[in-house]
Parts: sequence; structure tokens; C-alpha cells
Amino acid sequence: MTERGNIPRKIRGFRDIDADQNEIRRRIIEAATRVYRSYGFEQLDTPVLEYADALGKYMPDEDTVDKGVYSFRNPEEEPILAPDGSELRDKEGKVYMEFAPLALRYDLTAPLARAYAERLWQDYRRKQVMETNAPLYRRYQYGPVFRYEIKLLPGRFREFWQLDFDSVGTNDVAADAEACMILSDALEAIGLQRGTFRVKVNNRKVLKGFLFSIGIDTDDREGAVLRVIDKLDKIGWDDMRLELGPGREDTSGAAIAGLHLDSSIIDRIIGFLKLATGVSGRQNVLAELEKAIGTNELAREGLAELHKMNQLWDTLGFDEQRIVFDTTLMRGMAYYTGPVFEVESLLKYKDEKGRERNVGSICGGGRYDGLVEKLLGMKVPATGASIGVDRLAEVLRMAGEEEIKAEGPVLIAYFDDDLQPAYYRLARELRQEGIDVEVYCGLFKGFRKMKKQMAYADAKNCPAVILIGGDEAAKGVATVKNLRLGKEMAETTSDKQEWISKVQQEVPLADLAVHVKNMLA
Amino acid sequence: MTERGNIPRKIRGFRDIDADQNEIRRRIIEAATRVYRSYGFEQLDTPVLEYADALGKYMPDEDTVDKGVYSFRNPEEEPILAPDGSELRDKEGKVYMEFAPLALRYDLTAPLARAYAERLWQDYRRKQVMETNAPLYRRYQYGPVFRYEIKLLPGRFREFWQLDFDSVGTNDVAADAEACMILSDALEAIGLQRGTFRVKVNNRKVLKGFLFSIGIDTDDREGAVLRVIDKLDKIGWDDMRLELGPGREDTSGAAIAGLHLDSSIIDRIIGFLKLATGVSGRQNVLAELEKAIGTNELAREGLAELHKMNQLWDTLGFDEQRIVFDTTLMRGMAYYTGPVFEVESLLKYKDEKGRERNVGSICGGGRYDGLVEKLLGMKVPATGASIGVDRLAEVLRMAGEEEIKAEGPVLIAYFDDDLQPAYYRLARELRQEGIDVEVYCGLFKGFRKMKKQMAYADAKNCPAVILIGGDEAAKGVATVKNLRLGKEMAETTSDKQEWISKVQQEVPLADLAVHVKNMLA
Repeated sequence: MTERGNIPRKIRGFRDIDADQNEIRRRIIEAATRVYRSYGFEQLDTPVLEYADALGKYMPDEDTVDKGVYSFRNPEEEPILAPDGSELRDKEGKVYMEFAPLALRYDLTAPLARAYAERLWQDYRRKQVMETNAPLYRRYQYGPVFRYEIKLLPGRFREFWQLDFDSVGTNDVAADAEACMILSDALEAIGLQRGTFRVKVNNRKVLKGFLFSIGIDTDDREGAVLRVIDKLDKIGWDDMRLELGPGREDTSGAAIAGLHLDSSIIDRIIGFLKLATGVSGRQNVLAELEKAIGTNELAREGLAELHKMNQLWDTLGFDEQRIVFDTTLMRGMAYYTGPVFEVESLLKYKDEKGRERNVGSICGGGRYDGLVEKLLGMKVPATGASIGVDRLAEVLRMAGEEEIKAEGPVLIAYFDDDLQPAYYRLARELRQEGIDVEVYCGLFKGFRKMKKQMAYADAKNCPAVILIGGDEAAKGVATVKNLRLGKEMAETTSDKQEWISKVQQEVPLADLAVHVKNMLA
Repeated sequence: MTERGNIPRKIRGFRDIDADQNEIRRRIIEAATRVYRSYGFEQLDTPVLEYADALGKYMPDEDTVDKGVYSFRNPEEEPILAPDGSELRDKEGKVYMEFAPLALRYDLTAPLARAYAERLWQDYRRKQVMETNAPLYRRYQYGPVFRYEIKLLPGRFREFWQLDFDSVGTNDVAADAEACMILSDALEAIGLQRGTFRVKVNNRKVLKGFLFSIGIDTDDREGAVLRVIDKLDKIGWDDMRLELGPGREDTSGAAIAGLHLDSSIIDRIIGFLKLATGVSGRQNVLAELEKAIGTNELAREGLAELHKMNQLWDTLGFDEQRIVFDTTLMRGMAYYTGPVFEVESLLKYKDEKGRERNVGSICGGGRYDGLVEKLLGMKVPATGASIGVDRLAEVLRMAGEEEIKAEGPVLIAYFDDDLQPAYYRLARELRQEGIDVEVYCGLFKGFRKMKKQMAYADAKNCPAVILIGGDEAAKGVATVKNLRLGKEMAETTSDKQEWISKVQQEVPLADLAVHVKNMLA
């Protein structure tokens, strides 16, 4: 084989985030975490890398942690542990060792469950804590998560940021209702206009109970039906009907197996999903559900929860402009057990082919009362939600009138080796006045092209450039180029003289700090 | 084999960061990045996961990327690329495929080199950019890095945060001098007292040149000697002498091979390293070096660089209280080519055995003119430094009078199901006044133990708890417990009555917002 290259490149689906993108990310995280904290959530940070079995098998739309996750073996060999935490040994008492499977976290919920369970594990084994008094823990967390998406769709990434908040240790759906309000408050704080998004809410208990009442009474069949319903957004009613029935061919002609339900059952399912179509008013949707679910206990429990949530929203003035019920909402995650919510952006955008498209879902969440139990052994109900930071950044870019750019520093151009110490002294003086200042230090020892320095200032979105050559230094002045004004005038003025006179000014060094400050103000 | 358990646990050497630790981390990052930006550095974020070959083989004290790094195969099979970026093919034209080795980043410098090289790679191949006009790029970045430390020493972690700034595309040591000043400014901004730390500076060119002049004239021998010198802090002069000579036994009795240099050479090396011992004044250290290095060109170049850096520091008033020369300073990283710097904390702490220990190095950096070239093919000089965030957090904890704690929200206690909507309405009203408020929503539907709620508020460092039972609601008042004051008075007062009267007050709901605001002010 001929020589292999060492090409500088990123892994497919991974990105470098530049200053402007980081500025947007920073605004999103600051605004949202401010809101999260105002509701009493505290910050937790967990490792990027975890034991695969501690993350569990809860990938969205995946039953296994091997699929869709970056996983590898721990380079450190360790004892295999028994359920009681002791080392597993063979008959001769020899400890079984292994290089345990590790995984990059695929979300921030599984690590939260692990962290919560880890804190309580000893106490639970010592019977010092039980289900009735599991401690309440409300935390927020943000950071990168990783999904090995085998076929990488445009706009999808394998590393992306999530911004979660969760309440662990509460079975009170007031926490679910609050989560929906927090999402609404956070998105407004981030800068989304009210009315450009909706928090859609449903309760899996209602649908599960209904399905049970019409004979979908095993976990397997229920799971299969829920997975099909969850695809409704993508495939639409007709294809959903086919997948519940005989099956269908996708666009590529590949066969998609159907669930082969009786058409009467399919009619009832679709009828149930559509019962709120055209019905406005949360109260009225609940009334329709009331009629449809009959006596099934689980469904009635779910409906009562929706009633309680609705009451809180009414009390606090969260009307349908912000929160609506959606009887078709499923959410992919297998672990949701009750209320589920999703924020849909109502904005549209033009894709690369110029077709108008809906932005769609930008946040999601729900109640997961079984997740902690898988690790701790004791049931700890929990609920929470997640904002997709990168997705939301896209939405802000689409919604915003002018693009968000990170502002650069005032640049002191480099002319003269002998003046270099003076450049740095001046920079420090301006910095002490609260001005961000950079002395250009690019290549060309002893000679730096001005054209290049101006291009650097422009690319970096610098508001101004300060020029001091030998003559200026002798006169005790600096030439200040107001790049901000320059850009504005470039569009309004064609008069070169006027442009220069306004944009380029000679300022005594003594007045420089004040001059620049006023300019930036 | 009997059943294996699924124990909730973290990988050894990884941590959960709680609210208080995150508060410290947040302060460090905010203060330092503010300083970085004030010098003109912009934010970059790069993937946690990279192609191993793109990260290069620059682990501290390691020649290979396999050692000390978390590495695994890309689950996606991809074509192997030739040096020109084309796909490698066999004689039949079939593309060679592989599951390329990936690695978790072990620092933030290698990814910067990759990102910079990746942007320029095409242009460089098209001859549209060359060494003389490589673009200047000044960026800061922070986030987790990963080291698989086989033997994990106390206080060391396998995932920890770094906070870097670098100038790529400059051969001007003004950038190195500036980096030292930035470290000093940043650490003071973070809250370290001037005088409790020193920026130590050296130039590898000087030592390399000197070693060459006394016959250490191959890269291998030079590297071997530098690695021994770099251990000076840990092993001391005597053991260093042994390792340069016949070798030694470590405390465990294991043999450490020596370099078998002539004792006359060893004397000259140690003499050179000690030449600044007891010499105060940067100028005087430079004078001693001047005498010692003779005519070696590389050494003279390095000395001239130190002179220029010293001049800038003098001009800007960075005296020896902040920056000193240290002729023994090496820095582990193999890729440093010129000036190197390290910040040493002068604080001491007591270890678990009560022994007094030096905190030691908390930041480091230096010039690496060869790193980008390995990926780009074209030489791009660069320099920068890194703050160890977690290490620094430890220092702040040791230096601080009272510990840094994250403040919790005002807690509205849960008494009465019927009042729950009122609790949430009140919380929202207070929130709109800028107060962080949480309504307790822990378990025990319909009955929540007050003792548990108070413990929750205490653990969460809540400044106050608001209690509203049926009687209060009827009277239109709330009982406000001032936990902050309560903690203070608990130390000063023994009078229970006085304590209660001061700490616990009944407030009309109408005045509640104002009352709480004043209390928090």
C-alpha cells in the first residue's frame, strides 16, 4: 500500500464551533440557566464517558445501547461486580475480571439517573432510604452528547449540546406542569417571540389505557403500536394506517412490515388520535378524552393528571398561546411513563432546494418513573425536559433580523518595531478603561502589511483600528479608524472624502481612551 | 458465573461536579475568559472526539498517542486517504477501507492545531497561502480533556477541565511575553492575591543550545537529557545527577537506567541549571546566561528572545513579584520549541496525613512552532498557555476564608393540597420581582413532612423558607424563616426566644416581595 496521509479533519458529523456560533450558544445557555435557577434547579456536571451498563438501554428509538452509541472497552481491567456490589468470584475464589464496555453519553438524563442512584445506593442497601422518602433533587445540566447516527441526515450531528432540567423524587404532576411553563419561560428569555412556538402536551397513560381497553394488552404489542404512532409526523396518517395493518413499501421500495391489526382496531386507534382534531380549548380536549377512554383505570389516572396540570396553567395564566394538548404526541424515548411534552417551533425556513419547511420540534421532555429504578432497585419518580441547544441556535439565526456576531477587540495596528512596547503599553491603558484591545502580532517580523491587518480586523468584527506610525508618535497622536461607522456609511455614502473624514480621525493620545469609549458606547 | 450486577457508578478517575463546585468553576471561567477576550482572543469549541492521527503524538511525557489516551475504532468504515487527500487504492483501483482510530482529546492544543490546519489545508495545497503570510488566529477554549492515567495518584483525574488561549501564526515573542502577563492578569481576576503565585519563564533554545555546545548534539540524547531535567521538581538534584549518570533505584527498589554521561558533562549541566540560584533580578539572570552560553547561535537566539520579553514586562510594570526567570524550567510537553512558562502557586496545604505540601504548578504554556506543520505541511509558529481549572478550583478552596457555595432559591414549603395553586402563583409573582423561588414538590402526595422540607432547604443553601398553612392563608399572611440570619445567630445567640423572634417573621402577603427582597439584599 502506498503512503497514507495524515489529513487535518474532523470526524463526520462533528463540528468546530466558531466565535459567532459560540456567542449564540452562550446567550442560549445564560438565558435558559437563569430561568432554570429561578425555579430552584442547581447545576450538576457529569462525565462525558460512563460505564455503558450504567447508561442503560434507553437510546431514542433504540432498544440497545450498542446501536447508535459510541462505545468501547475500558483500557483498565476491573473486577466484575455482583448485584450487591461485591466482586464476582469463581469456585476457587478467583475474581472475574473484564475490560468493561464504556460509552459516550447519548443524553443527560441517563447520567442524572446514574448520579442520583449512585448517591443513594449504599443507603438503600442499608435500608436507610425507601420509596416513600426518596430525596427530591432538582438539577440542570448542559453539555455535549453523542449519537452515532449511521445515516447522517443534513442538519443532524453526532455531537450536539443539550440543556436539561429535571426533578427527581416527585410523583406530583405539578412538577410536569411546571416543566412546561419553564420551557415556555426559558424560550422567551432566550429571545423567541411568544406565539412562534407551542408547548404540546399529552399523557402516555391515557393512550396506553385506551389501547389496553381495545385489546392491545401486552407490552410488546403496545410498544409496537406506540412506535408506529410516534412516526406520525414523518409518515402521515395513511402510511401510519398501513404500518398498523398490512405494512407498506417506503420510497426506496423497501418493505416495512405491518402490525396486521384488524381494521376495526386501527379505526378506533386513529379515531382516538384524531378526537381532538379541530377541537380548540384545553378544557374541551379533556372533555373529548373523557368521553373516549371509558372506565380504564390507567387512562382515567392519566386524564386526572392532565386536569391537574391544566388547572395550574389556568391559575398562572398560561393559555393556549403557550401550552396546548396534543393527543397524537408520543415522544420517542422508551422510558417515558406519563405526561410527555414537546415544544414545536411554528417558524418555517427554506431548505437548500428552496422548499419551505417547518422547523418542528426544538425541545422535549416527560415523566420517567422507571429510569432510576433500573439502577437503584427502588422506584424514584422523575420528570424533566431538554432544550436542543444547536437546534435552537439555528432557529434564532432564522428568526433574527440581523445575524448574531461576536464583537472583536479594538485593534492596534503594528507599524514600527521601535514603537512595539508603546503599542502594548497603550493597549494596557485602554484595557484598564474597560476596552478590549489587541495589539496585532501576526507574522512578518519587522514588517506587517497594513492590508492584511485591516482584513484581520474586519474578519474579527473589530469596531475600530488604532494606527500609530513614526509621525503620529512624534506628534503624540493616533489615527482611529471607526470600522463600525465605516460599514454603515459604506452603504449610505458614496462620497469618499466624507467617508474618510468621518470614519478616520486623528486623536491626541491623551484623549484616546475617552474617544474610543464614546465611539463604542 | 453467578449473576452480574448493574451497579450505579462512575469510571475510576471521573467525577460528578455538584452545584458548589460548578459555582467555583463558573467564576474561574467567567473571570479568565473576560481577561482573554480583553486581549483579543475569540472563543473556539472543538469536538471531544477526534481522529487519533489528527491529534498527533504529543501526550505529555509520552511519545505515542496509544499510551495515556482513551482511544477506540470509529464504528464507521471509511476510505484511507493519501497525503494529497485522495482515496488510497490498490492496483485494481479498489479503495482501501478502515475503521480509523479515534481518541478523546487529551488537551486543547492539539485540536487547535487540527482546526487551524484544516481551515488552511486546501488553500495551502493550492499554493494560496504560504509560511510568510499564514493567518493570525487568537482563540480561547475551555472544556474537558481526558487522560488515561494508568496509576491514578490522589487528586489526579482522568477527566478534567482546561482553559486555554493561544496565538497561532506569530513568531514574535511579544506574544509569549503577553501570554505570561495574561496568565498573571487572569489569575488575579479569578481571585488569587498578587504574590501568592509566580509566572516562571525559561527558553528551551538556551538550554538546547548549551547542551549542543557541550556535545549533547543528537535529538535522541538531547531529548533524554531534557526528560531527566524535567523531573528535577520530583526527584531533586542528587537523583537527577544519578539519572544523568549511572542510574539509580527508586523507592520501590526498581532500577532506573541512567544516561551514563561523563561526570564532567553532568557537572556542566548542573552548573548551568544552577547558575541563577540565589541570583535575583531578571536582568541579572540574563547576564549570568550571557556568560554561560558562549557563541552557540541557538542559545544566543533564545537569550535575545528572553531579553525582548523582559523589556516588555519592564515597560508594562510586570516586576519580579509576578514574573521571574527559572533556568531549570523544562515543561513536559515534547512539542515546545522556545519560551516555556509555568505558574507556580506559593500556597501550601496539609495533605490527608497532615503533612504540609506545596500546591505547585497551576498553569503552563509555551511556544510550539512545529505542531501545526505536522498536519499542514507548512510551518506555522504558535504560542499559548493553559489554566488547569480543577486544580485552580482546589487552590481557591484552600486560599478562601469561607468556602464558596452556590446559593439556593427561596423555598415555599408545601403544607396543603388546596393551597398548591396559590403556592405556584406566589412563586411566579416573586420570580417576576427577580427572586429565585422554588415550590417544594417532593414525594408524599398530600402530606409532606416539614422536617424533610427544612433539611432540603438547608442542604440547598436556601436563604429563606416561606410557610403558608390554612391559618396563614385565611389571615392573608406568610411566615418567613430567614435561614441566612438563622445560621449567623445560631453561633452568636443562645436565647431561643430572641432567635425565633428575629429569624421567624409573619408578613402580610401584600408585603412579601418587598420583605424578601430586603432580606436578600
